Amino acid sequence: MSTIIDSGLVAEHNAKLRSNLEADYAALGGMLERRGQNIEQLTTLAQGFAVAVPSWGVGTGGTRFARFPGPGEPRNIFEKMDDCGVIHQLTAATPGVSLHFPWDKTDDVAALREAATRHGLYFDAVNSNTFQDQAGQEHSYKFGSLTAASAQVRAQAVQHNIDCIELGHALGSKALTVWVGDGANFPGQHNLRAVLERYLDSMRGVVSALPADWQVFIEHKLFEPAFYATAIADWGTSYACATELGPQAKCLVDLGHHAPNTNIEMIVARLAQFGKLGGFHFNDSKYGDDDLDAGSINPFQLFLVFNELADAALREGEAFKPAYMLDQSHNVTDPIESLMSSAIEVQRAYIQSALVDRIALAHHQEQHDVLQSAQALKQAFRTDVAPILAMARLRSGGAIDPVAAYRSSGYRRQKAEERPARAGASGSGIV
Amino acid sequence: MSTIIDSGLVAEHNAKLRSNLEADYAALGGMLERRGQNIEQLTTLAQGFAVAVPSWGVGTGGTRFARFPGPGEPRNIFEKMDDCGVIHQLTAATPGVSLHFPWDKTDDVAALREAATRHGLYFDAVNSNTFQDQAGQEHSYKFGSLTAASAQVRAQAVQHNIDCIELGHALGSKALTVWVGDGANFPGQHNLRAVLERYLDSMRGVVSALPADWQVFIEHKLFEPAFYATAIADWGTSYACATELGPQAKCLVDLGHHAPNTNIEMIVARLAQFGKLGGFHFNDSKYGDDDLDAGSINPFQLFLVFNELADAALREGEAFKPAYMLDQSHNVTDPIESLMSSAIEVQRAYIQSALVDRIALAHHQEQHDVLQSAQALKQAFRTDVAPILAMARLRSGGAIDPVAAYRSSGYRRQKAEERPARAGASGSGIV
Amino acid sequence: MSTIIDSGLVAEHNAKLRSNLEADYAALGGMLERRGQNIEQLTTLAQGFAVAVPSWGVGTGGTRFARFPGPGEPRNIFEKMDDCGVIHQLTAATPGVSLHFPWDKTDDVAALREAATRHGLYFDAVNSNTFQDQAGQEHSYKFGSLTAASAQVRAQAVQHNIDCIELGHALGSKALTVWVGDGANFPGQHNLRAVLERYLDSMRGVVSALPADWQVFIEHKLFEPAFYATAIADWGTSYACATELGPQAKCLVDLGHHAPNTNIEMIVARLAQFGKLGGFHFNDSKYGDDDLDAGSINPFQLFLVFNELADAALREGEAFKPAYMLDQSHNVTDPIESLMSSAIEVQRAYIQSALVDRIALAHHQEQHDVLQSAQALKQAFRTDVAPILAMARLRSGGAIDPVAAYRSSGYRRQKAEERPARAGASGSGIV
Amino acid sequence: MSTIIDSGLVAEHNAKLRSNLEADYAALGGMLERRGQNIEQLTTLAQGFAVAVPSWGVGTGGTRFARFPGPGEPRNIFEKMDDCGVIHQLTAATPGVSLHFPWDKTDDVAALREAATRHGLYFDAVNSNTFQDQAGQEHSYKFGSLTAASAQVRAQAVQHNIDCIELGHALGSKALTVWVGDGANFPGQHNLRAVLERYLDSMRGVVSALPADWQVFIEHKLFEPAFYATAIADWGTSYACATELGPQAKCLVDLGHHAPNTNIEMIVARLAQFGKLGGFHFNDSKYGDDDLDAGSINPFQLFLVFNELADAALREGEAFKPAYMLDQSHNVTDPIESLMSSAIEVQRAYIQSALVDRIALAHHQEQHDVLQSAQALKQAFRTDVAPILAMARLRSGGAIDPVAAYRSSGYRRQKAEERPARAGASGSGIV
Repeated sequence: MSTIIDSGLVAEHNAKLRSNLEADYAALGGMLERRGQNIEQLTTLAQGFAVAVPSWGVGTGGTRFARFPGPGEPRNIFEKMDDCGVIHQLTAATPGVSLHFPWDKTDDVAALREAATRHGLYFDAVNSNTFQDQAGQEHSYKFGSLTAASAQVRAQAVQHNIDCIELGHALGSKALTVWVGDGANFPGQHNLRAVLERYLDSMRGVVSALPADWQVFIEHKLFEPAFYATAIADWGTSYACATELGPQAKCLVDLGHHAPNTNIEMIVARLAQFGKLGGFHFNDSKYGDDDLDAGSINPFQLFLVFNELADAALREGEAFKPAYMLDQSHNVTDPIESLMSSAIEVQRAYIQSALVDRIALAHHQEQHDVLQSAQALKQAFRTDVAPILAMARLRSGGAIDPVAAYRSSGYRRQKAEERPARAGASGSGIV
Repeated sequence: MSTIIDSGLVAEHNAKLRSNLEADYAALGGMLERRGQNIEQLTTLAQGFAVAVPSWGVGTGGTRFARFPGPGEPRNIFEKMDDCGVIHQLTAATPGVSLHFPWDKTDDVAALREAATRHGLYFDAVNSNTFQDQAGQEHSYKFGSLTAASAQVRAQAVQHNIDCIELGHALGSKALTVWVGDGANFPGQHNLRAVLERYLDSMRGVVSALPADWQVFIEHKLFEPAFYATAIADWGTSYACATELGPQAKCLVDLGHHAPNTNIEMIVARLAQFGKLGGFHFNDSKYGDDDLDAGSINPFQLFLVFNELADAALREGEAFKPAYMLDQSHNVTDPIESLMSSAIEVQRAYIQSALVDRIALAHHQEQHDVLQSAQALKQAFRTDVAPILAMARLRSGGAIDPVAAYRSSGYRRQKAEERPARAGASGSGIV
Repeated sequence: MSTIIDSGLVAEHNAKLRSNLEADYAALGGMLERRGQNIEQLTTLAQGFAVAVPSWGVGTGGTRFARFPGPGEPRNIFEKMDDCGVIHQLTAATPGVSLHFPWDKTDDVAALREAATRHGLYFDAVNSNTFQDQAGQEHSYKFGSLTAASAQVRAQAVQHNIDCIELGHALGSKALTVWVGDGANFPGQHNLRAVLERYLDSMRGVVSALPADWQVFIEHKLFEPAFYATAIADWGTSYACATELGPQAKCLVDLGHHAPNTNIEMIVARLAQFGKLGGFHFNDSKYGDDDLDAGSINPFQLFLVFNELADAALREGEAFKPAYMLDQSHNVTDPIESLMSSAIEVQRAYIQSALVDRIALAHHQEQHDVLQSAQALKQAFRTDVAPILAMARLRSGGAIDPVAAYRSSGYRRQKAEERPARAGASGSGIV
Repeated sequence: MSTIIDSGLVAEHNAKLRSNLEADYAALGGMLERRGQNIEQLTTLAQGFAVAVPSWGVGTGGTRFARFPGPGEPRNIFEKMDDCGVIHQLTAATPGVSLHFPWDKTDDVAALREAATRHGLYFDAVNSNTFQDQAGQEHSYKFGSLTAASAQVRAQAVQHNIDCIELGHALGSKALTVWVGDGANFPGQHNLRAVLERYLDSMRGVVSALPADWQVFIEHKLFEPAFYATAIADWGTSYACATELGPQAKCLVDLGHHAPNTNIEMIVARLAQFGKLGGFHFNDSKYGDDDLDAGSINPFQLFLVFNELADAALREGEAFKPAYMLDQSHNVTDPIESLMSSAIEVQRAYIQSALVDRIALAHHQEQHDVLQSAQALKQAFRTDVAPILAMARLRSGGAIDPVAAYRSSGYRRQKAEERPARAGASGSGIV
């Protein structure tokens, strides 16, 4: 594995921060020990954590109003792989890359596999795209894709998903994530039931093309791009469809795809209970599908999601392996910095959830000691595990402070020169 | 059947309004005819419509802050039956009464059946209550009922539901509605999955006590009285549980029990598609479970719900018979007036949905003629079917203007004398 | 005034529908008369109604995910004026056009004025755009415009608004609408107070450039494109700013720019009471700023807004003249059809609100007759005033059924040939 | 000052935990020092912090469905003062008590003042109650109080507020908090503008009765008990009214009284900027006015509120002194435990906000270094300041672990014997 950022630079960075980190680590270790917890076990856990990075996340995002490009944006999947490689090099927590077709399509699959190997990366779930029309595409998705009234459109959308499976298969992926924006903007536009019947029919075609060791993840979303009725709008629909589609079909939870006030961690618990929790798109949001950095708006909610995952892992054992992916839109930050920070935020929630004393918690719950039950979670959440995460990175070959190391490496500056600016798309021009 | 309000009074009332009604009816009939629709068919449909009245709805409601009693509130189930009788007499649309135990419990079941027969009423779904502690009750529901950690509490709650089935059976009901407020106020208070496992276990006990021709309706609700995590919080959980519990278990949709922005009509379509739509609690709301009069806040949404029901009826035929009930809290109106108006609102939505030309609509949908698809619904909704509803009442022996007839009857004034004021409970004293 | 669609075609269309309309009009007139209302007065009111059309609305909209172009989209302001002319010709309700700079900027102002005159149109409020970067622009708005930390950026944004005023002045407009997307995506990104101080400072520069007979409308919006904290997020901020900025500054209410569950009609009442209601952007929404057709999701809410406007007009007299504009994004319909239908929906709400007997309503309110107060509004809303609106159009030279007339005219087909397809922009490429 | 819980018990409790605390404190001190921060300054700040306790909060709360009483609930204001005394004794952070009239009315004001002095307490803002009818009250508030259509009702409500001021004056309070539930359940029930005009008129009467050194706090709330239109529903209305009512009128922010997705910390910033931030009712919520323990659902939001308060304090200096009060409903916990924990949560947010390096933050903001701006807040929030808070308590004479000390004291058990159970009110009996 060849590092993208000079490993000497990283070592130098770490050398400067090391003694402070060791002091913090010792201080935290003592505090944890006084509570009966062992910091080394947690650090080992942190080293084992991984969350996949979305290939599309390394470009600058935008809204329907505007996109403000950043310098040095990657122009193709190979440049994206470089950026993903930097993220993993410095965080040691993101070995997986989630591709998106046709955006990441390449004729040279071997070269792409080779690029992954070179950066110590592998390919996590692949994503299909039937929410946009591509140049030269025969039928438009304007009025739906997998759910379209037209059988020809549906067939095209099914075939695209099958193509994605084949590409993913060639790259070593083991799952396909299907998100469709299909839906209606007006009451009456769709026969709501017919739409879902067509969805199930199309998805049966997709499922039948899955290799035996693959899964398909159904991703629901309340709204956008459809603004009245989205075909797969909530976890109930996702779950019912996954049940209809058999054991290879599971549900994917994106933290920003729910109605206001929804208790997302309870959805996680429900899907785990009914054996249909496939994976996550981590991000954060305040209003809708805002696609903000994970943990930036409501870090306690992220912790509570991991608290459910820890409970499920305890119950299910090794069989319980939902896929973890980031899915964010970086409009005002350097995407590499946001993805590194977000991977760490998710890892933080994972380690904090490991701090919960589940036997004591169960005891408080049985005793109706509501206050201590609540405090058991709050104390774990309050614990500042930053030294654990930094030590895990250091031990795994990453950077103590990935953003600082990245900045001092000059990577972005160099890429800004190598990669001429992408033309500044400017939203869809709507107020 | 003996009428409660003097039938001469009603006849007199109708006589005064009749000629105007006939003129309006003729005018509307002409307008509909020019659109190719027959008013008489619609009037016949309206005469066949029925929605059940909740026994608890004839008293004045309140909030946790205060309850402001109204005059002449019924003090027991027999007085409530009188009030329900008035509602049905004047609207000719509410032959069913939905009871609530133990509130409506009586030792004299025969007398209660007799009261129903006398007023031309029957008993719709019965409701259990495990969200309050009753005087002399052995175990408290403070920390849950069907989902409680304590096996004794759960057994008590199961037994109460079985008692409700027995009482309902003796009264001729055919369904039990189970709503539990069980849930947590704090993250950590509950093991979310254990709570649902216990719910399913308890409900298996309830289901096993159902007569063969009975159904049990699972009613979900997002929040209140639990404010962090409610055991049966959404349709997804309700559906998953109904599936686990077998063919007698179905889902009940209360229009006010959803997260903000939820597309409720789509939930109706989903439950109909998957064979689990049991029935409705109709009401309206702007914020939470506001329990306002049906159609008072968003009448178009009520229409869209019936639009889905009309679609399902067309697909499923006679087998499709969800239970229709009102469930409202009348804090500032005369409950009898609100229930009459609300029954008419629901009936209005039913008739408006019958106005939709479903063949034309399907054609527009196939052609992606979004505007005309939307207009097909809007035109039906815009049609002022009030003359049809009034004529249906007149022909079925009700009042042309039920509220006016009720007011002129002096019923409330008389009851205010007969029924001394119920002590003014004053909320729970919380700001 | 030259009509764009052959006036013979429109006359032919009207001739076919006229007798049915007259029959419906007479039937409705009779029904209203039996309620003590005069249909002719209402028709005269309808003829006097006007709502402005946004120039950007005649193109197909899109989302950040994709834009699916329609045929014959206008490529410049003159083609947009043609489309606006069609809308007004057929609805006789949209004489105003609201421009958007720099999108609609032209070097030939005289030609633009001439185009307006030719189509019987005038220019309503002009809109500035500092939410996108334009080619060749010196400073980027990536990190804010009127609120930017950089004085140079702010100066550029102020100057753009002054340019808009000058352009609008040359075109006969009397108002500037200022919407800024400025805001933060992360807690900490902005000093929330400093941002508003800079906004006020910038706006003082804009206000000082207003001609004496101009108004400036401050448009607030909860979120998007900023997803954590938007500078002008709610009516409270808008009102406080309008107060600071003096009598020429007023607040503009877009129906889709509020938090879930917000009572928008109450905001209208508040702004009217405090003398700061400047105008409206009409549209409808279910989730966020969905920009759907007016009245398509919650028509009762649109009526309730007009109910407040009717109340204010009664109190304020002729001085009360808020600006009415549509602001919609047409993703799946023909924009001309949607704008015609939406103008009629707004006009419908206006006429329905005129049906409310305000003296009776005030009486019911004083008597605490809550049910009749509510019914007074519901009865007005339920009244199907379609024949009034159609007759108003007929008498004012429009089409009885504008969409049908438009379709039969072949206008879109012809434009599809004349105007080659605009390159299919495809969102910002973000999941 | 006499302690309620034996001070020997507290000392014994502290003695057991002291060495661990000192070790944790030293460990944290070292970590902070390595970041350039001094733990002693923070501990001093923590010792200076105070948040008032609501007298009504020491009883068990409930919902409209049920109230499940706890053991040993206080039966009058003197018993409530004892409970408040315990809270302050153990937390050393709650010297103020906020009374509620007429609930806390006493004929023996001197005795009440004496009780306060004995426990080291003083009286913070007093609260009026015109949302309930009291026994023997002449006019009902069923249809409004300060906003009622009836002049007699309004006069009664104004007089009650004046009575509250007088009582508060006798007790040494300096502020009156006015929350009215007045509002409508139906569109049409109220003339929205007339209601606010009457509110302002009534409030002018209240304001004119304020002593010169008093403030009146206007508390807004989106909904409940009114479910369609609440008179003082949002901060915009509160601010406009406070402006109309002059310099003694300010706005009070209850964290649970906003629409879903509202950015509350921005409202805090706005009110601070415009000089109208009067104070807070701290609590937490997930759905509506859930009145859960402060920081239990979204602790980061509580921190962000204090981040704005720290910014305002820096700008305004000593003049900036908003009132801090808890306002919670304890349905499933021991109220004393919840209030102690909540006071500590608020104190925690205060100390965490003091950790923010505001000069560095301002620098990041100016440089558009969005990621570091966000991280500056996140790092402060992540810091586990528990040892600081515990040390502050220890030094101020409180308990290191207030809940543990309280439990070991047997206070509740003793009160359960001394105070016979309050009759179990059971909600308002509405589903």
